[in-house]
Amino acid sequence: MIYLDNASTTKTSDIVNKTIACALENDYFNPSSLHTQGFDVHKKIESARKKMLSCFGLSFYDLVFTGSATESNNLALSQATRGKILVGAGEHPSVLEKAKALKAEGRDVCFLPLDNNGCVDVEEFKKQMTKDVSLVSVQLVSNETGAVNDIALLSKIAKLANPKVIFHSDMVQGFGKVACKLNSFGADLISLSAHKICGPKGIGALVFLKSIKLKPIIWGGGQENGVRSGTENVPQILAFCEAALFASENQKHLAEKASKTKSALIDLFKEKNIEFIVHGNGSPFILSVSFAGVRGETLMHALEGDGILVSTGSACSSKKAGNKTLEAMGVQLDEIMGNVRVSFGFEELSNEQIEYVADCFAKRIGELKIDKGSKR
Amino acid sequence: MIYLDNASTTKTSDIVNKTIACALENDYFNPSSLHTQGFDVHKKIESARKKMLSCFGLSFYDLVFTGSATESNNLALSQATRGKILVGAGEHPSVLEKAKALKAEGRDVCFLPLDNNGCVDVEEFKKQMTKDVSLVSVQLVSNETGAVNDIALLSKIAKLANPKVIFHSDMVQGFGKVACKLNSFGADLISLSAHKICGPKGIGALVFLKSIKLKPIIWGGGQENGVRSGTENVPQILAFCEAALFASENQKHLAEKASKTKSALIDLFKEKNIEFIVHGNGSPFILSVSFAGVRGETLMHALEGDGILVSTGSACSSKKAGNKTLEAMGVQLDEIMGNVRVSFGFEELSNEQIEYVADCFAKRIGELKIDKGSKR
Repeated sequence: MIYLDNASTTKTSDIVNKTIACALENDYFNPSSLHTQGFDVHKKIESARKKMLSCFGLSFYDLVFTGSATESNNLALSQATRGKILVGAGEHPSVLEKAKALKAEGRDVCFLPLDNNGCVDVEEFKKQMTKDVSLVSVQLVSNETGAVNDIALLSKIAKLANPKVIFHSDMVQGFGKVACKLNSFGADLISLSAHKICGPKGIGALVFLKSIKLKPIIWGGGQENGVRSGTENVPQILAFCEAALFASENQKHLAEKASKTKSALIDLFKEKNIEFIVHGNGSPFILSVSFAGVRGETLMHALEGDGILVSTGSACSSKKAGNKTLEAMGVQLDEIMGNVRVSFGFEELSNEQIEYVADCFAKRIGELKIDKGSKR
Repeated sequence: MIYLDNASTTKTSDIVNKTIACALENDYFNPSSLHTQGFDVHKKIESARKKMLSCFGLSFYDLVFTGSATESNNLALSQATRGKILVGAGEHPSVLEKAKALKAEGRDVCFLPLDNNGCVDVEEFKKQMTKDVSLVSVQLVSNETGAVNDIALLSKIAKLANPKVIFHSDMVQGFGKVACKLNSFGADLISLSAHKICGPKGIGALVFLKSIKLKPIIWGGGQENGVRSGTENVPQILAFCEAALFASENQKHLAEKASKTKSALIDLFKEKNIEFIVHGNGSPFILSVSFAGVRGETLMHALEGDGILVSTGSACSSKKAGNKTLEAMGVQLDEIMGNVRVSFGFEELSNEQIEYVADCFAKRIGELKIDKGSKR
């Protein structure tokens, strides 16, 4: 099997699996317990937190562990107390749906249009970014297209208009992929996920500037400095740390490998005279591509028969019709219907594997186009 | 080491560890992905959900997986849209703190007083349970004292006063301990946790009557039927199911064993002429006990030196001063200060171990009382 659905989720690495197994065996104590064993586990969590912040290069930040990046995004948007909220139209559903929920509560929410490349339109952002905006949420990398927003520029524009604005960025598809240090972006809040970087599911983080006092969305025993109650998920936290350290240390090398694979695949598509259009080209880990006259979902299932796993848009929206991000980019309906997302992981593909993938795309697209013709 | 802090958290069982390791290796696909591998994982989650509901004996109920029972309790209390909210004064902090947050938002929240046994006072409940109450939250078993509330009676009283009331019960310390079937309680919403029954941390559930349309507190990709977004934590869900099935199948036997251990320990305390008072005697898995003239925390640390782990109240409130549950029961301050919680798990203690524990209690209490005397 050739797994090319890594933007959806990744397989955990060996070190992550070992960390989980070891913590289940040895670190099962409750970090809130006052006995030494509980306190030792508590110290391990604090050490993981520090290591992660240090690997992100974020000295003036703290980090709260959550149950998912979805929860992190919900927590981030909940920090908007008054004024307008600006949200990219191509954000992850956990931002979009939370923003809609806030709008339904009567909040003033504005969805920022995307340009042809899938990025938030900077000129439009400048217009919308007025003094009364309390929170901005724009992702670093689109999970649908891999489009990379210029967060440093956007946060600068935002702070100039309102120095008190909270700038949030969902960096789930960015950290360990297009960035390892996160200090240059000027974001106040950053959402991260473990399971996109070969860490486990069920654990996320919200990184936040220390000067911000976060209001919780889950109340209880006061864990995570009162910001996120619930017994700490010790094995996943320690495993997340391992995954983050690996991704950070190897980001440049991994991105180069992914970039070569992506370019090689695109070159082979051209060589094989496949008609295709790439959307939002940015992250080397994501190739959002449409094929004329072919339905993305049908192509995806056909490729499954060849042992190749791709997806139609993000897993988070795959069970819903359409593709909101491509729509927001102004992509034509037939291109949206013919879209698949090929997403690369940390494991390198051999030249033979890339050749095989391109061959299968060519073969299946040919068949599906013929099939479609013969049915007419 | 003799671990007697099982109400705080438990060590995962071998079958749970194996389930997690196996899922990390084989079921890492995103259940929302449309390819067969994703769908197969989705089916495994649905199968786990059905098995759990069936083992609870709940035909007319559905179940949403959450990141913790704390989240389940927060989700449950968020279902109260209007009218009064009644909450037991001895509930877990995830109920109490969420209730306080609702009160701060202007909601009418009433904290139900406890009787001497640590149960919600039934006569007081009858008075408070008026037609305008929209939600009630009373736990089955107190995490602090093991006191067992008569949920069947309370839910009956509640439904008589207002047939539309939502009756929620936190059964985290009850399921697999004092109950295996949950259908006789008449609760509309039930919170459960994996890590109290030898399952993993970071996974909980809210069981709900199918006729109730739950409003989410975390928005996003629409997982869990739109009630709880975020990529499903597949390994923990499958492991939770294994833990629940084991606890359900063995509950009666496990409770008998725990009951014998608890009685034997109490008998030995008497034999050794230890002065002690038991609070809220109910669950065989929890012994909340105060020793005159001894500080609970000091005793706890002294016992650690003997390789015995107990706690001072719940881990969730251990880092805060006092013990709200004992206070609500009207327990005197010196008894609260002298309180420790001994909580048994699914692993049986040998007679020698029980003897050793009692010996250590006797020895340490003797020393601490002398120490205190000599310091005066």
